[in-house]
Amino acid sequence: MANFKGHALPGSFFLLFGLWWSAKYPLKFLLKRNKCSRLCFERVELAEGIVKAVFSLVGILAEQFVPDGPHLHLLSEDRQSWVKLMNWQHSTMYLFFGISGIIDILTYSSLRIPIGLDRLILSLAVFMEGFLFYFHVQNRPPLDQHIHSLLLTAVFGGSLIIMMEVFLRDNIILELFRTSLAILQGTWFWQIGFVLYPPFGGPEWNETDHGNIMFITLCFCWHFAVAMGIVAISYTLMYWFVQIKSRKASAMELGQLKNSHVSLLNGSDEE
Amino acid sequence: MANFKGHALPGSFFLLFGLWWSAKYPLKFLLKRNKCSRLCFERVELAEGIVKAVFSLVGILAEQFVPDGPHLHLLSEDRQSWVKLMNWQHSTMYLFFGISGIIDILTYSSLRIPIGLDRLILSLAVFMEGFLFYFHVQNRPPLDQHIHSLLLTAVFGGSLIIMMEVFLRDNIILELFRTSLAILQGTWFWQIGFVLYPPFGGPEWNETDHGNIMFITLCFCWHFAVAMGIVAISYTLMYWFVQIKSRKASAMELGQLKNSHVSLLNGSDEE
Amino acid sequence: MANFKGHALPGSFFLLFGLWWSAKYPLKFLLKRNKCSRLCFERVELAEGIVKAVFSLVGILAEQFVPDGPHLHLLSEDRQSWVKLMNWQHSTMYLFFGISGIIDILTYSSLRIPIGLDRLILSLAVFMEGFLFYFHVQNRPPLDQHIHSLLLTAVFGGSLIIMMEVFLRDNIILELFRTSLAILQGTWFWQIGFVLYPPFGGPEWNETDHGNIMFITLCFCWHFAVAMGIVAISYTLMYWFVQIKSRKASAMELGQLKNSHVSLLNGSDEE
Amino acid sequence: MANFKGHALPGSFFLLFGLWWSAKYPLKFLLKRNKCSRLCFERVELAEGIVKAVFSLVGILAEQFVPDGPHLHLLSEDRQSWVKLMNWQHSTMYLFFGISGIIDILTYSSLRIPIGLDRLILSLAVFMEGFLFYFHVQNRPPLDQHIHSLLLTAVFGGSLIIMMEVFLRDNIILELFRTSLAILQGTWFWQIGFVLYPPFGGPEWNETDHGNIMFITLCFCWHFAVAMGIVAISYTLMYWFVQIKSRKASAMELGQLKNSHVSLLNGSDEE
Repeated sequence: MANFKGHALPGSFFLLFGLWWSAKYPLKFLLKRNKCSRLCFERVELAEGIVKAVFSLVGILAEQFVPDGPHLHLLSEDRQSWVKLMNWQHSTMYLFFGISGIIDILTYSSLRIPIGLDRLILSLAVFMEGFLFYFHVQNRPPLDQHIHSLLLTAVFGGSLIIMMEVFLRDNIILELFRTSLAILQGTWFWQIGFVLYPPFGGPEWNETDHGNIMFITLCFCWHFAVAMGIVAISYTLMYWFVQIKSRKASAMELGQLKNSHVSLLNGSDEE
Repeated sequence: MANFKGHALPGSFFLLFGLWWSAKYPLKFLLKRNKCSRLCFERVELAEGIVKAVFSLVGILAEQFVPDGPHLHLLSEDRQSWVKLMNWQHSTMYLFFGISGIIDILTYSSLRIPIGLDRLILSLAVFMEGFLFYFHVQNRPPLDQHIHSLLLTAVFGGSLIIMMEVFLRDNIILELFRTSLAILQGTWFWQIGFVLYPPFGGPEWNETDHGNIMFITLCFCWHFAVAMGIVAISYTLMYWFVQIKSRKASAMELGQLKNSHVSLLNGSDEE
Repeated sequence: MANFKGHALPGSFFLLFGLWWSAKYPLKFLLKRNKCSRLCFERVELAEGIVKAVFSLVGILAEQFVPDGPHLHLLSEDRQSWVKLMNWQHSTMYLFFGISGIIDILTYSSLRIPIGLDRLILSLAVFMEGFLFYFHVQNRPPLDQHIHSLLLTAVFGGSLIIMMEVFLRDNIILELFRTSLAILQGTWFWQIGFVLYPPFGGPEWNETDHGNIMFITLCFCWHFAVAMGIVAISYTLMYWFVQIKSRKASAMELGQLKNSHVSLLNGSDEE
Repeated sequence: MANFKGHALPGSFFLLFGLWWSAKYPLKFLLKRNKCSRLCFERVELAEGIVKAVFSLVGILAEQFVPDGPHLHLLSEDRQSWVKLMNWQHSTMYLFFGISGIIDILTYSSLRIPIGLDRLILSLAVFMEGFLFYFHVQNRPPLDQHIHSLLLTAVFGGSLIIMMEVFLRDNIILELFRTSLAILQGTWFWQIGFVLYPPFGGPEWNETDHGNIMFITLCFCWHFAVAMGIVAISYTLMYWFVQIKSRKASAMELGQLKNSHVSLLNGSDEE
């Protein structure tokens, strides 16, 4: 879907996951010593897997059965050319994210799936996205190629980080880094949409101007700075939330202690 | 051997090893706590090494002594050109897999070979395969080059994974990843054969068409998804197999316990 | 700022940090067993973070508000072209180092920031510097490109080393390596200034001569050798300093011991 | 020194070090439990460092003061061109190996040099060799470029392996791998000499023929197989040597035990 929506949609998905992670991982880190939170987080991971799998299924179906989609046909009727390879490509990307979702579900259900497989599959899903993108953007004008290859930096970087998580599971540094790369990917998809298919009309970008290419590179860095900022703000909010909650909890405990003490005293009085 | 058989043969070997590994590694992982299985698996590894070494020897001999092979000649009789470098190249690939087989045998025999050397040599054998392939496919039509360079992704990826196993031995995640890459390599060799040398005739592929190149890239991703599926199915089968076997074993133990209990009671009766 | 000063200034900053690190890290390593030094070093790290943040802020303001700077304008008034992208690029580089400084401050203050985040952000700041440089030097004469791409070796090497420090914190080998790369970067910036914008006039360099390119490559190696030499000298000086200090300390202790012994004897005499 | 000797000389050095390592590392591994061997090996490492430093010094002096060398001049007398940059390049390579030798000496002397620095510096020396080679072989005929870039595979591979040894010190797998790469480098230098500057005359190689390039690639693989074979043979010899020695030692101990027993008996007789 080479139009604005076709970039805004996946962008929104990545942004959604990135923002969700920017709340989840700091919380998990700050509540580490809290035993009851562990079981709760396992259920959250399970839910995340289900959402991922459902989103991917919807994505595949949408790409196949939109009015101008391939409707599961691969070869044209005269068997001379391929039908809507772009849609097939996007379907394939969703397929791998779907597999990742299923493995997430299996990991956090009661089966004996080896620990770390979920990260490996997620890493491969992201790698496959980058792999298909890489061949996707060949033979395009310079600006188009450059803006997509900047995206690839975030994609392959993300794949590498998740691969490291196979061996360094629950490492908060890697998780926060992955989160910021997911947000970056999300906002950058939107940026690509705005540059290549301006939604509100306006003048088109000169796709061969070197100044534009330099500006886009700068712009990518600013997106990353913003993504890091969002993660930082989210971390701070979670920190305050945990602080307030733990104060309340200890206040309540203190209250209960007092009450029980009073009742104890009363009890001893009654004796 | 630039024909269909020349691609189907190595493809079958990789597929065979991949399928075998897809049964072996899940079994080893699921029977980890079982002490008696350890010795059994060492014997299996020894057998695998022997098979690898024998296959490689057969491969070298076949490449050298097929009717149109070099018959161990390297220089043509007029000393002006090289004889059948392609066959020599394949012989060299087999040679390294042969060395890997021998090291496997030595590792699981009683000698004091350093642990991990078997993985290093296997990794180097796979690297050498990729290394020779890399220079093998230069100066070819775009589709031919692309379809082979996709193979290289699997080959070099596999080499890297096995290199990591030198330091992270018996890591089930790496072993399953390696297994799926071996299956991918096997099926992709078959795919190359079907695309470049259609065995049942049919129209030839346009080797410069961009659509074909895009389709082949997609196709590679699907092969990988299928390879992952095969590993998943194999893992599930092994899981059931181990479950059933352990239930039977405990049932039998229970039966023996009962019997012994009965005989004990009888014994005490007789007293 | 494509002139001599524009290269001498950042060069001086990197050189300053490199020289400072070449004293700090050996001292930290040699005083490792000394408990009281730990708290002292935390305060030093805090100060370093503040200096980094302030330098970066000054850098951003300078790049924006020099007479021929963009004064925070991005689009020209006719909205047809970008304003002073080079200055914006440098501002962006400073921005990431500024973020790194802030994270350093937060890490060594009393907040619960995850350990290792400071190294990740520093690594990303250095990566971003290299990333922007990489696109900065395209479309230039061969010598200009080559002299900048040599710099990139040091930059990306440094980024990789710092990334490793996320997981191998307080590893003296990595710290000394990083220090020598920082010094190398500093002196190489000066070298670039001297070659491309000779400050004392003199003949210009032939920017396409292969001999010049070969010489510059050699020169880069010598700079690295000198950087390693500086680190070695600094390490030796710190070693002597610690030796002398510890001898004095033990001499003083011995002195006090003697005195107390004497006074004890006197005391027992008086009895 | 673009002639046969100029390649045979460094080749011999690498071969010498490779062969020496192929005896040293297996011995160290097989005698690991032997406590007295540890001190002995430290002295050996010290000697190796001294040899490395002396060889490098000789190399630098030879490159500078051969009759057609630069005699420490860098600029020609008319200050228009550089003098003998090739010799300066080789001197620089030797310089880094010399620094590595000095660090080896310091590591195994009584100073408090951080452990692992010797490997880092050796890795950097090898990297610098590859780095200078990389720019050294540009603008040459295809065969010349190819034969040198094959060498670079061994060089950069070696640098990477030694860098890993900084963190995985005394890992026999890495040490044997490094040894085989050193031998490969040695024999390949000789091969380059034979191909580009045939010492016994004979027909020159066609430097643009694709067949020759394919053959040379194959040849490189064979060299590596031979290098691995040499290491394997050396390992086996050391294994036998240790076996025989330990048998003799236990036989002698047994003998002494018997003698002491006999003398004890005699002694008790005399009583």
